[in-house]
Amino acid sequence: MKIERMNQGLRPPALAIGIDIGGTTSKIGLVNQHGQLLDRRALDTQVLNDAKQFTQGLANAVRDMVKTHGADLPVLGIGIGAPGVDEHAGTIAAAANLPFREPIPLAALLHAETGMEARLVKDSTAAILGERAFGGAKGMNHFVLITLGTGLGSALFINGQVITGSNGLASEYGHSIAVADGRECNCGQKGCLETYVSATGLRRTVLDVMAHQKGDSPLRHIPFHALDARTIFEAAQSGDAIAMEAFEQTGQILGQALTGLIVLLDPEAIFLAGGLIQAGSFLFDAVERGIEKNLLAMFKGSCKILPSRLGGEDTGILGAAAMMWPSI
Amino acid sequence: MKIERMNQGLRPPALAIGIDIGGTTSKIGLVNQHGQLLDRRALDTQVLNDAKQFTQGLANAVRDMVKTHGADLPVLGIGIGAPGVDEHAGTIAAAANLPFREPIPLAALLHAETGMEARLVKDSTAAILGERAFGGAKGMNHFVLITLGTGLGSALFINGQVITGSNGLASEYGHSIAVADGRECNCGQKGCLETYVSATGLRRTVLDVMAHQKGDSPLRHIPFHALDARTIFEAAQSGDAIAMEAFEQTGQILGQALTGLIVLLDPEAIFLAGGLIQAGSFLFDAVERGIEKNLLAMFKGSCKILPSRLGGEDTGILGAAAMMWPSI
Repeated sequence: MKIERMNQGLRPPALAIGIDIGGTTSKIGLVNQHGQLLDRRALDTQVLNDAKQFTQGLANAVRDMVKTHGADLPVLGIGIGAPGVDEHAGTIAAAANLPFREPIPLAALLHAETGMEARLVKDSTAAILGERAFGGAKGMNHFVLITLGTGLGSALFINGQVITGSNGLASEYGHSIAVADGRECNCGQKGCLETYVSATGLRRTVLDVMAHQKGDSPLRHIPFHALDARTIFEAAQSGDAIAMEAFEQTGQILGQALTGLIVLLDPEAIFLAGGLIQAGSFLFDAVERGIEKNLLAMFKGSCKILPSRLGGEDTGILGAAAMMWPSI
Repeated sequence: MKIERMNQGLRPPALAIGIDIGGTTSKIGLVNQHGQLLDRRALDTQVLNDAKQFTQGLANAVRDMVKTHGADLPVLGIGIGAPGVDEHAGTIAAAANLPFREPIPLAALLHAETGMEARLVKDSTAAILGERAFGGAKGMNHFVLITLGTGLGSALFINGQVITGSNGLASEYGHSIAVADGRECNCGQKGCLETYVSATGLRRTVLDVMAHQKGDSPLRHIPFHALDARTIFEAAQSGDAIAMEAFEQTGQILGQALTGLIVLLDPEAIFLAGGLIQAGSFLFDAVERGIEKNLLAMFKGSCKILPSRLGGEDTGILGAAAMMWPSI
């Protein structure tokens, strides 16, 4: 039951490479001990089906950045975050949105190519380590990160450690069941949380609200395939009742789901990240109402719901780089 | 992210006292390194409103057992499990079913009275440590214990550690919301898991099934206040359709709730304990169906659902005693 308390942000001066493998673009950055991004490159992920060519492309970018900026400070190594990583095997498995068929041991390949230490983790692991190193979770030993994008990603940092589970599969809270026999999910299940709480879930909820309510709305003039979260947010800002109700329902369902995490894990904070948090109070106020309605009294006020401080597009780079300091 | 692997069951020969504080009776036992109970006493918890008298009663039992059995082996100390413990403060708080009003620092009081090392934890913490030390979870570093009694208790052992949370409040999964706006719970919420999945929840489900179905049943002759889980189990064994359907619904809801734990924590196993597991396949088969229906494909087969090996009434004693060996 000993809690391993870790160095709370006092990183020795050094640099690290962070690589964020995405479905279309992979980003490579050079990061210092304060979480500042000194340099940044991008590479087309679609060439990843040739692992050798992709590795060389990454290695070239790394070498060039180190050559340009790495004269004065040690470069600790290369942290990599990617979807579909098997952290136990050290490979990127064949994830749904990555264009290759065989598991690729990218850390080993990059180490062989550059001679630098390299470490590969799930993108969700990189994100939560980044939030703790450089974001709002500095010094926290019990917190959760929920990322609201096309789907719902989650990551847990408990007792001072990332939770990866017995098979390296942990933190798929987006596929917990929010509504029994509810909406069809891409995963084949019904009622998964991410079918309600994500950019896609929000769009589906707009349809549901339009079906249920009678009032007119600019959203009734937009076909589903053209509807995006930003348009819904702008409609809500203009006072559109359907858009506001869609955010309300989304936030309330998320709030209810978060109470499940709070009573189970008793975290200090839950951070929300991803594009949807730009909706601000439309989302966060509804989340608080969902929590208020559903949270066991003894937990009231025990857990803060906060926007990620690393909401930007470089979060993945920062989180991956953060791993390379020994304090993490 | 380092996993602290602990000694897997190789306890040095010694004895320890385990105390299990219950709402009506408190049990004191002397346990050896194999988890065998060498002696056992009981004390009326209702005298706990006089903390001094209660402490002396416990201390007298401890001293007597040590005197009788403790000649050949060292006695490591006194482990105590109780409801409503604040593990950070080291006190038994005013829990709903305990007959006193002020927090009692029972470990400190017993140490002062006996001179022996004493340690106080929540009953759920004692139970999960007992399962790992002497039960089915030997050697496991990622598992969950769900206890189905009057309510639903839960405990988490993740990355080789008990999860107690940032405020010592963790593992109240019985009060996660299973059904939005569902059944009224004692806690003041609606739809808490334990209003469906517990002995009380099963009884309520029998009412619900009787209201919904038309068929006759011996259960229609028993008033709600006289209905208990054992009677429902015996009816199910006799082929009563209403009792069988009540177990089916109970197990399915539990199975759905367990998928939420599995996708979040990726445990090796979830152990079910408490009186309700005596229903055997009526419960476990329905749980498996609830999991099969709701679990993300990549997790299929990843987590075993097992009956606790310490299902008996002395589990609390064994778990509390287990804490005193240094390997835990």
